Amino acid sequence: MKRKGAMTYAAAGVDLDAGDRVVEEIAQHVRRTHSPRVLGRFGGFAGCFRLDYEEALFRRHFKDPVLVTCTDGVGSKVLLAAQLKIFDTVGQDCVAMNVNDLIVGGAEPLFFVDYIGIDRDTPKRVAQIVKGVADGCQIARCSLISGETASLPDLYGKDHFDLVGFTVGVCERRRLIDGSRIAAGDVILGLASNGVHSNGYTLVRAILRRRRLNLQRVYPEADPERTLGETLLVPTRIYVRPVMAAVQKYRVKAPIRGMAHITGGGLPGNVDRILGSHLNAAIRTRSWAVPPIFRFLQQRGGVKEEEMFRVFNMGIGYVMVVRPHFAESIQHLLRRQGETVSVIGRVTRGTGRVVLK
Amino acid sequence: MKRKGAMTYAAAGVDLDAGDRVVEEIAQHVRRTHSPRVLGRFGGFAGCFRLDYEEALFRRHFKDPVLVTCTDGVGSKVLLAAQLKIFDTVGQDCVAMNVNDLIVGGAEPLFFVDYIGIDRDTPKRVAQIVKGVADGCQIARCSLISGETASLPDLYGKDHFDLVGFTVGVCERRRLIDGSRIAAGDVILGLASNGVHSNGYTLVRAILRRRRLNLQRVYPEADPERTLGETLLVPTRIYVRPVMAAVQKYRVKAPIRGMAHITGGGLPGNVDRILGSHLNAAIRTRSWAVPPIFRFLQQRGGVKEEEMFRVFNMGIGYVMVVRPHFAESIQHLLRRQGETVSVIGRVTRGTGRVVLK
Repeated sequence: MKRKGAMTYAAAGVDLDAGDRVVEEIAQHVRRTHSPRVLGRFGGFAGCFRLDYEEALFRRHFKDPVLVTCTDGVGSKVLLAAQLKIFDTVGQDCVAMNVNDLIVGGAEPLFFVDYIGIDRDTPKRVAQIVKGVADGCQIARCSLISGETASLPDLYGKDHFDLVGFTVGVCERRRLIDGSRIAAGDVILGLASNGVHSNGYTLVRAILRRRRLNLQRVYPEADPERTLGETLLVPTRIYVRPVMAAVQKYRVKAPIRGMAHITGGGLPGNVDRILGSHLNAAIRTRSWAVPPIFRFLQQRGGVKEEEMFRVFNMGIGYVMVVRPHFAESIQHLLRRQGETVSVIGRVTRGTGRVVLK
Repeated sequence: MKRKGAMTYAAAGVDLDAGDRVVEEIAQHVRRTHSPRVLGRFGGFAGCFRLDYEEALFRRHFKDPVLVTCTDGVGSKVLLAAQLKIFDTVGQDCVAMNVNDLIVGGAEPLFFVDYIGIDRDTPKRVAQIVKGVADGCQIARCSLISGETASLPDLYGKDHFDLVGFTVGVCERRRLIDGSRIAAGDVILGLASNGVHSNGYTLVRAILRRRRLNLQRVYPEADPERTLGETLLVPTRIYVRPVMAAVQKYRVKAPIRGMAHITGGGLPGNVDRILGSHLNAAIRTRSWAVPPIFRFLQQRGGVKEEEMFRVFNMGIGYVMVVRPHFAESIQHLLRRQGETVSVIGRVTRGTGRVVLK
């Protein structure tokens, strides 16, 4: 006999059956990211990935393999996605934020794991989020081998969710790129971003609120063809293929001396992480075209120029510091891979600072 | 000239300087988890871990290394921690939820990465959370090599945070334990839990609210010595050392045929993950002492017995399925490692179900 008022987990807001349905929905997306190096899951407790799928190959590639890892979330861009009810793009942002950090050290991404904290299990919404993650993994050529969806109705507000990723890559130890060989005279290449990417959305949303901007409207000064919401939701660019192509092609001479993924902190706060204390990065901000969306946000929000460069990527999503002699040929390679590349500055003697001119 | 009303990132709720202070605060905790296999961070973009720190050793240990990974969060136990303003224990929960899943497949934990999503950067609170993560990593003998604290004032309610972890381990491929060799007659060993661990807290909190239970009060029927809040915040037990000791000691004969970490879904929902479709696990629920906290929650919440076993671990945090001949000696080994172990059942012919008697 069921007692009236008997408490169950479902009544408290957690529906384990809905969780099972999500697993089915997402399986198709997860599978398309798998390579032969992914092994069957062990009762779903963990994901398994062979470091290399043939012993002979493994020995040839790795003498002292270093595993490289990082974690990042999409930040408050997820709130914009929730507001617009567009759930299949932030997954790519999540992958991008992680793999772009990973390749900075020269590592090749191997696999990806996602975590979704959400107010309640809605299989279609979760499946859309995971679809985006799988799309990102395919672009980044890594396998989505594990993940977790946590329904936390008391932690996440209605329709809210957080999306976090973890990635692991591998690099032979002596090929790690850490910026220590950067020298005065090196050329700074900037790879164009896709727009705002995944940083600064707390400020973006504050501007949206204060100026009562309409996400459904086309503001020609921001983007003549897309609504403001669409423009702000364009997924973060994934630089894995062009960067890996350059790293691998120039493996022996190693003219790529340092790289930086431009996230929170902008160019000044990210390029400085790879500079020695005796060097500066002199960046000419007029050497590339700042995308209109940034000028639109700046003008509507009355944000100072310096603050804009501290919060946003301003059009440069990834930076490579290269030996001058190779700057031309690396640019050509990156362009053939579909990148928009500019020489945005030079390394000079200095004090470990990024100087914007 | 600063315009009145000019918007900054800080005014929108994100304080990058506070973020820098957090990094300093947590560095001391992170460092004590590091082994010689951890390499210097590459400008903070990613964490680096040598798969093995000597080539000869690496070749001896691994012919076909499989990387094993999982992710999990602490769930709504974090809300209880926030309510009680006790921030240094949930980090151990976070590590435990992940490494206990990882070792189920026989993998040795290598490193850990944490993600804290939080309403605002409060260096002391974040440092306490990371201290707990580092404590857990030391118990689990893995290194905390990367992490992220994301201040998301529009996503997390005041004083709220989410805590998510990610771990990577390694196992030689032919030593992976996946339950496929489990046979009828195998003995099911249960390792005692520390209490509620990190699952079912949405229901716990619903019972707390409905029965207006006082977290500061000692309820002798729940625990005669601790307040209810303290009892509910005891960190999840980490089974890495005893389980790795057993796996390594019996590496050749491999009598440990399957393992399960008892999380959401309880014994029925986790032990079934390693059972073949032709076997059952017959578990006698009177073969161990259910800790008083569970009976207290059950009685106050009017929760049915079956539901209790579906939501909570009921006193068994980890399960090992072993060949009968080795059951005695494995129990002795686990007890010498400090575990409380019971024979809780047997594997029988069946249909892939866990039968509680």
